Amino acid sequence: MKESVIEELRSILGPSGLLVDQGDLLAYSIDGTWLEAMPDCVVLPTSTQQVAQVMSIANRELVPVVPRGGSSNLSGGTIPINGGIVMSLTRMNKILEIDPDNLIAVVQPGVITHDLQSEVRKYGLYYPPDPSSVQHSTIGGNVAENAGGLRCLKYGVTSKYVLGMEYVTPTGEVGRAGGRVIKNVTGYQLEQLLIGSEGTLAIITEITLRLIPYPKYRRTLMAVFDRLEDAGKAVSEITRAGIIPAAMELMDKSCIQVVEDYLRIGLPVAAEAMLLVESDGYYESAVEAEIRHIDGILSELAAEVNLAEDESQAEELWRARRSVSPAVAKIKPNKLGEDVCVPRSAVPEMIRRCQEIAEKYDLKLVIYGHAGDGNIHPNILFDKRDVDEVSRVQKAAAEIFQAAVELGGTLTGEHGIGLLKKGFLGLALDSTTIGVMRTIKRALDPNNILNPGKIFPDEASYLQVPFDVGRT
Amino acid sequence: MKESVIEELRSILGPSGLLVDQGDLLAYSIDGTWLEAMPDCVVLPTSTQQVAQVMSIANRELVPVVPRGGSSNLSGGTIPINGGIVMSLTRMNKILEIDPDNLIAVVQPGVITHDLQSEVRKYGLYYPPDPSSVQHSTIGGNVAENAGGLRCLKYGVTSKYVLGMEYVTPTGEVGRAGGRVIKNVTGYQLEQLLIGSEGTLAIITEITLRLIPYPKYRRTLMAVFDRLEDAGKAVSEITRAGIIPAAMELMDKSCIQVVEDYLRIGLPVAAEAMLLVESDGYYESAVEAEIRHIDGILSELAAEVNLAEDESQAEELWRARRSVSPAVAKIKPNKLGEDVCVPRSAVPEMIRRCQEIAEKYDLKLVIYGHAGDGNIHPNILFDKRDVDEVSRVQKAAAEIFQAAVELGGTLTGEHGIGLLKKGFLGLALDSTTIGVMRTIKRALDPNNILNPGKIFPDEASYLQVPFDVGRT
Repeated sequence: MKESVIEELRSILGPSGLLVDQGDLLAYSIDGTWLEAMPDCVVLPTSTQQVAQVMSIANRELVPVVPRGGSSNLSGGTIPINGGIVMSLTRMNKILEIDPDNLIAVVQPGVITHDLQSEVRKYGLYYPPDPSSVQHSTIGGNVAENAGGLRCLKYGVTSKYVLGMEYVTPTGEVGRAGGRVIKNVTGYQLEQLLIGSEGTLAIITEITLRLIPYPKYRRTLMAVFDRLEDAGKAVSEITRAGIIPAAMELMDKSCIQVVEDYLRIGLPVAAEAMLLVESDGYYESAVEAEIRHIDGILSELAAEVNLAEDESQAEELWRARRSVSPAVAKIKPNKLGEDVCVPRSAVPEMIRRCQEIAEKYDLKLVIYGHAGDGNIHPNILFDKRDVDEVSRVQKAAAEIFQAAVELGGTLTGEHGIGLLKKGFLGLALDSTTIGVMRTIKRALDPNNILNPGKIFPDEASYLQVPFDVGRT
Repeated sequence: MKESVIEELRSILGPSGLLVDQGDLLAYSIDGTWLEAMPDCVVLPTSTQQVAQVMSIANRELVPVVPRGGSSNLSGGTIPINGGIVMSLTRMNKILEIDPDNLIAVVQPGVITHDLQSEVRKYGLYYPPDPSSVQHSTIGGNVAENAGGLRCLKYGVTSKYVLGMEYVTPTGEVGRAGGRVIKNVTGYQLEQLLIGSEGTLAIITEITLRLIPYPKYRRTLMAVFDRLEDAGKAVSEITRAGIIPAAMELMDKSCIQVVEDYLRIGLPVAAEAMLLVESDGYYESAVEAEIRHIDGILSELAAEVNLAEDESQAEELWRARRSVSPAVAKIKPNKLGEDVCVPRSAVPEMIRRCQEIAEKYDLKLVIYGHAGDGNIHPNILFDKRDVDEVSRVQKAAAEIFQAAVELGGTLTGEHGIGLLKKGFLGLALDSTTIGVMRTIKRALDPNNILNPGKIFPDEASYLQVPFDVGRT
């Protein structure tokens, strides 16, 4: 980047709003994956106007801009593979309004999701999307990635809670999509197009969110299964009974083992699967009736069902699930956390196929996921210094994607395509649809300056990209 | 249209799939408004392939194509103002699949919404969106318009139930957007962009819908208010108490009077407002607790609360609400059924302003609406042969839009922009956003053949269009 452009940026953002020292830039060269690439500079705007000015300059100078929130991204979406400007929205972190009469919150993009949840809770309100990064990811990042979490079957993903937004186009214009109302058919659903667009179509500078009343009551149970198929059957039977629990989390055999090795709390390591189910709601009698109903269904199929009698017992049951990530981190230095999503009834088959693929390539695989909504996280553990292992990981990942698509599913339920899956986009989407998406990208970002090189396949195939991210 | 093109269409669609007689065309020249314009021909495809072939020819010949379902459209969206081809999707009317394990239905676009609801009910499942046209509008039309209904506050509008779709582009290519899974971040949310695009971006040829378990229990009550503000306060207090009822329907004074004149069932004609509230759910105890809670809140504010003790009493309460349309039709030959949506807390103020506007222009106005989600239908009754009255209707409509936007709302909650509101798009959306939407339209439909002249403002202003729809 030209020094004159850096100076122009500094004049807009002030000295604290622009980073150019290599040490500072390093922190913005990474995300939640193992990928890395250095930007030329980092801008930290504090207003929409600053965002618009930066985009205007970048568009004029043809410098790439990569927007970024908490950077817990798991698909490489915020890695600045072409250098240029990383735009961190973390200083735009105000909750602008909480309106309990209209069940609305208006926030800047840099608000940490958990902070918003805590604030609205004071009004008896709830913002349901809860990606596991909820403590450090931002609402802006969640919107850009259309983040999910544990409660999506019952409550839906981020897109279901966005009513409107202010955005800045790649050419530096400011607009507002959607609004403050829950029924709105004035023009196209532009806000929905921007949700999940991974920072490639616009920079989101303000978000109007729909809230719901906080469900006051919750009950949790854990079921242990000798056979994986029985866990799958249990999930189907709960659904068939007309029940949509708040969460239905599944851990496979190797996941149980890894967590037990980490926690030593006596988890059933001989079991093929564990299922954690939570019911919640606004009336105690209904939550009680629902969890008893689930208990009854599970008791027919599970080797053991453990219904938590109070909050602390429920907390204990959830501890195993929440320990998966730290437990996994102890096994191998690197992790490819996949994120396929299949129709719910295909979950056992998907898990079986993943296990077979891991065996075929002699890889350590730990599987957990959101069984209720079919979103499965097969985590392949590896050491990126082991060239042979890396090559086997790549082949296994490709076969996992293939299996998900064969079973009626897709590449990613909540992590996004970013860099890690762009080479596989054509597995899940037909050429017409990829063509339409590219046409939209080209029309809205004619100079291809906003987060270039993400989502769409290019010459650099997946098989090279994830392990060798230099400038392209 | 050239005779050779008609012949080419006939060879694709067969004799029963192409209409050219003026008598036949007449039925396709109108929709749910009072607008009319004749097409050159009507095609009735039975397959996606036929749809693609027609689009390909139309794109080559630069002939407009206006897709159409049940044509209950209330914004003129299916009026063929530029002649050309009307494409009726009503022969593609198969329910292709109902999958109770995955809570999914796959349908062709011509399936009547109510037929789908009845079919899935047999499996204990529910498809919630219920526009008042539900008995004759199609799923394809509902998706193209992002239709709403009474139950949107609790259950959400059509867009919340679409997982994926097959579509045909304006140039005749076939693609699939979205999928069969409830979490899907593979590429842009193209299916969401197409939902509510009013047939201007693609023809939807198959839809994959999310279903939910059917809520087995429901209770209904009616509250009568001496003052409109108390009805508004009641809605706010119900929300503040953490309750989201299945429906909260409001009728204003003139609406009560019109229905009473029609039904003669002793409605409270001295009251300023009536509120009809329905609770539903999966557990009887919870529904009972919720309706009692609502009853308690309303008893503090209403002159009278009437809780239906059984299904037939509930049915009786709903009869008044359902009689609004036939009752209104008796008063004047024409009706402008507006559809503004404001934040819930602004509903009383919005109704007051509408009443003042009607008084100012000496017009007969009947207001009802979905008070829970802020979607208000001010119906202006008039006679289109009365030139002076028509001119006052036009001025009043403009002021109603202005008021809705001033109160933080928008032009249309569920009817769409179509022809009737396109002149006002700039009231609700900024020029950047209209520009971005136009850019998308131009990029995906470079020859502007798919439902041209809809949504976006043009030279012919709203003030002429609705009452003089010739070829433009």
